[in-house]
Formats: sequence, C-alpha cells, structure tokens
Amino acid sequence: MLAQLIALDWGTTSLRAYKLAEGGVVLEQRSLSSGIMQLPKTPRVIAGQTCNDGFELAFDEACGDWLDAQPGLPVIACGMVGSAQGWREAAYRDTPANVATLGTSLQVIRSLRGVDVHIVPGVIQRSRLPNVMRGEETQVLGVLQNLVEGTGGDLLIGLPGSHSKWVEVTDGCIVHFDTFMTGEVFAVLSEHSILGRTQQRGASFDGEAFDRGVQVALSTDGEIGPLSTLFSARSLGLTGELSATAQPDYLSGLLIGHELSALATVQRRRRNSVHLPSIILIGNSQLCARYSRALDACGFARVMQAEQATERGLWQLALAAGLVTQNPSR
Amino acid sequence: MLAQLIALDWGTTSLRAYKLAEGGVVLEQRSLSSGIMQLPKTPRVIAGQTCNDGFELAFDEACGDWLDAQPGLPVIACGMVGSAQGWREAAYRDTPANVATLGTSLQVIRSLRGVDVHIVPGVIQRSRLPNVMRGEETQVLGVLQNLVEGTGGDLLIGLPGSHSKWVEVTDGCIVHFDTFMTGEVFAVLSEHSILGRTQQRGASFDGEAFDRGVQVALSTDGEIGPLSTLFSARSLGLTGELSATAQPDYLSGLLIGHELSALATVQRRRRNSVHLPSIILIGNSQLCARYSRALDACGFARVMQAEQATERGLWQLALAAGLVTQNPSR
Repeated sequence: MLAQLIALDWGTTSLRAYKLAEGGVVLEQRSLSSGIMQLPKTPRVIAGQTCNDGFELAFDEACGDWLDAQPGLPVIACGMVGSAQGWREAAYRDTPANVATLGTSLQVIRSLRGVDVHIVPGVIQRSRLPNVMRGEETQVLGVLQNLVEGTGGDLLIGLPGSHSKWVEVTDGCIVHFDTFMTGEVFAVLSEHSILGRTQQRGASFDGEAFDRGVQVALSTDGEIGPLSTLFSARSLGLTGELSATAQPDYLSGLLIGHELSALATVQRRRRNSVHLPSIILIGNSQLCARYSRALDACGFARVMQAEQATERGLWQLALAAGLVTQNPSR
Repeated sequence: MLAQLIALDWGTTSLRAYKLAEGGVVLEQRSLSSGIMQLPKTPRVIAGQTCNDGFELAFDEACGDWLDAQPGLPVIACGMVGSAQGWREAAYRDTPANVATLGTSLQVIRSLRGVDVHIVPGVIQRSRLPNVMRGEETQVLGVLQNLVEGTGGDLLIGLPGSHSKWVEVTDGCIVHFDTFMTGEVFAVLSEHSILGRTQQRGASFDGEAFDRGVQVALSTDGEIGPLSTLFSARSLGLTGELSATAQPDYLSGLLIGHELSALATVQRRRRNSVHLPSIILIGNSQLCARYSRALDACGFARVMQAEQATERGLWQLALAAGLVTQNPSR
C-alpha cells in the first residue's frame, strides 16, 4: 500500500512517527527520544544545506527517508511541538472545543526540505484554575471517531501520564478537563526525596503493594490527603511493615488512589449524582493497567482501553484539513 | 556564669550546639552544617588519636573547645543522631509518650575524648499509618514547661519544616501526631519538576501570591486536591495571570493551604466539634510566619509562637536524667 500521510506525535520527551496509508492504516511507525526538550544537536546536511536547527534535525531523523521515497507526502503533527517552546506555536483553542474541526485551524511551518508541517493546536480551558492540553485533544478525537452514538454524555476520557488529563466530551466538543501531576510527582519524589532513599526499584509490578496504596488513599486515613499519607511510604518501612522492594508500587498506588478518589468526588459533585461515568483510557498499556485496577477500587464500574488513538486522531484531522481524502470506493 | 550543660540539636542536615548555665540560660550557641547525612570527612587528631569517624569529628567541632575549657560538662543530644543511621540508636518510645520522663530513657555513647553523650529517644505512634519523630519530642517538652496549667486539652503544637508535625498533647503525654511532607514536596517540585522551570526565585516574600495559593487550596476548586491544583502554578503562568516571580510563593501557599485545610478537617472529625484548637508553633520564624498567615485563613483563631523550645526541652531532660540540678536557692 502506498503511504498517504506522515503523522507525528511530538511531545516534550519523545517523538513518534507514523506512516499511514488509505483509511489511516499504519504502514510503519517509529519512536525517537527527540522530544522538544531533548532535540538532536549534531549538525548535518539536509536538502543540501548544513543544518544545526534541532527541530529540522529531529524531523529529518523521524521521516526524512519516508519523504525521500515519496516527496509529496503531507505531514501533520500534534503535541508540544506546537507550544511556545515548540517549532511553531499553534495558539490554543478555547473550550468548548470541537475536536473534529481542529483540523481547520492547523498552523503551518515549512521545513528546510520544502515540506509543510501542519501543526495541531492545543486546547485551553479558561477556568479560575486554567487547564491546557497539547496532543491529548488529538487522542480524544481518535477515540470519539470509534464510539457508538449516544455514549458521550456519561463518558469520561482518561489520559494517564506525567500529567494525567480527564476529559469530559459533549456532542464532539471538549467541554471540561482536569489535570493531575501524579506521574511527575511520583517521579520527583522517587528520584529526589527521602522516600527514594529506602526504595528498591525492581523490574516487576508488585500488585499487592500497589493495591495497598490505593486502599490507604480511599480509607478514612486517606482523608488527611497525599501530603501526609506520603510519609507512610517511609514510616511503614521503618516499622518493617513495607519492604524496600514494595515501596515504589505502594507509593504509586497511594498517589493514583488520591487522584482517582478526588476525581470521583468532583465528578459526583459536578453531575449531582452518585453515579460515576464510564471511563475510556488512552495511553501506555502498563500505566493504563494500573489505572484500571485503581478505578475499579474507586467504584468506576465501566472501564475500557482505547487503541491507536493518536494515529486515528491525526488521520481524522488530516482529513478535515483536506491533506488526505477518504477513499470514495470504500 | 559557669556552664552546666552542653545541649545538641543534631538533625539530618544541621547540628546546633548550646552551652547552658544554671536554669538553662543560654551562654553561647553555634550552628553547623554537620547533620548526620553530611558529616565532616577530613581526619584530625582528637584526644591524642587520629580520628576519621564523622560523628566524632562533628562533635569535636561543635563543642570540643567548650569541653577543653570545662572537661566535666555533661552532654545531651536530640534528633536524628539517635536514629538507626545516627551515632547510637535510641529506640523509639511509643505513644502515649510522657515527654518529661523521656529523660530517664537516654541512650549513652562514650566519645573518643571520654565524655558521655546522652541521646534522647524519638517517639513512635504505631497507628495503621505509623508516625515517627526525633527531636520534635524535645521541642514539645520545651513548650509544655512554659504553658499555663489547663490549656493542654484544646491545644495543638505545630512544628513546620521539611516534614511538618502536628502534635496533640494530653497531661504531658504525646497522644497523637500527624506528619505532612509539605516542605520537602515544595523543595523537590521547585528544584526538579516542570513547575521550577518557569519559577523565578527572589529574595523577598510575596505575601499576595502566598495568600492567593492558600485561598485556592481552601476554595471549591481546591477540593480536587494538591495533585491537581499544583498544575495551576504553571497554567496561570501560561495565561499571564501569575508572574514568574510570584510562582514560588503561590506554590508555597497552595501546599501549606492544602496541609492546613486537611488538618482542620481531621481535627474537627477527631474532636467531633466545629471548634479548632489553639495552636503553638515551634520553628524557624519565617516559616512560622507563613504558617500563621495560612492558619488564620483556615479559621484557626488562636496561634502563638514558642521561643527557645529546643534548648529548654534539652535542659528539662537533663534535669530529669540527673545530669544537672535545679539550683535549690531559687
């Protein structure tokens, strides 16, 4: 099959490239560490010119050979590449944001090799505590395309990660979302706080320790909040009740448990109902598995995981932008 | 006045030494950075022997000259020096712990120069999420000695720091305490997370930014918890609503606000009353000033700050241990 689109998911620490054929079928994909905060630095020749621009270098590494083989391929990119620190800023769209029409607001930058890169704007919610996303709006679109009509109203889309996003969608529009810095807080505490000193990090997931952390967050003891319960990852070690190898997953469960417990409270208040919405998770499968366990413990009864949300979303946006066409024969 | 006691407050990152006279009057004090995690390493001669033991070296730096001048002076020490990673482990005493009688449970280590160092045990609360303290029990004693009879029942003693402690005392006993890792979480987020990247740290305290953070934590928006509100320290910057110089104190207010909001909730539940206890704060005066502002915003109506709690507590413990005597003529 001939390629029709190059789709880039270009974040802070990673760059994933997809070569897509008709209908968004993935022909080839790559993962590079050339996120916008760790771009390549070694100059090289691109399109006959010596180049030392990190964005050009990363772009060339990600898909230069694909473009050499098929020079006319259109390129679309989402994520932090469109931020103020990115290649070209694509201004945020305000909530409520119709994700399907984001494709009509792409920002364009012409690369050194003469190819236009079409950058997807992020979404901003100008609430008292503002929220922003870049990349997740594309994943949300990728999921919505596959949903059965009518499920939207009782649905919450979760995107676990360094900064987890929980997105409420109505009639194809992102109407509200929340951010939790759970993943980054876990990382900095494990690497730089006293909690890391007694942790022994192993390869395999300790489900029992994780579940225990979740249960503490959900218990009466957990009402004192994460700033206090955190200390139990150390004090349970001091009393011999939590081994060094169990401490990392206990801490992970504790933090994710606090996130989801707060999420459930806020969702019930906003919906003015004891019922919790259905959940669709998007992201790394190991992390989604952790969140699934914890969501179940928190009383979220219906949890599904979406596949290929990013590449599907980028394909849809390229369609909306007229960069590719739906095959009329299908 | 002749010295009667050397009192050491020996923590993780610092070592404070006091030369005390009759009645606990402070004749001289010193502050060294030789906490148990950053002991001196350069060998030197102590009592005629070449020594490379970090504890001996730090001890000699802290008060060797005082002991040379008055070789018979007794020495008492509290803090992490009595932990498993300390000079000599002084096993925790369980809650309820009578702080005045901790002086009868001192652990002794004989230093190279032949002087006995008497180490105060810490306190452990073996609750479902255990809590431990080392050094704070001595400060609590130092405060209790100065209290008017009968105020204890409606009192909470706060010790802000890297790991804040909130201590409930009944009849001279520590009956319950909570720990919040607020100070350390603030430090690791500012130094190692994305929040630090846009912070511009200045010398002067931005009270407006601090109060704003406290108010967010106490507001309906704050119910989603610190893992989520944290992100506003970044997103308010992105929307131009929070300057780079205001971000550090905003984050500080946010975290302290979440700590105190949770503390108030837990205190009301435990006391089964809407009334909040009186507060006595012990610690660094600048940090106590921050906590005072935030306590006021949280509805804690009576807040006082204690002075010289550590040296007074160490003096009382030395009295209880018979290391010094109360002057009978007074």
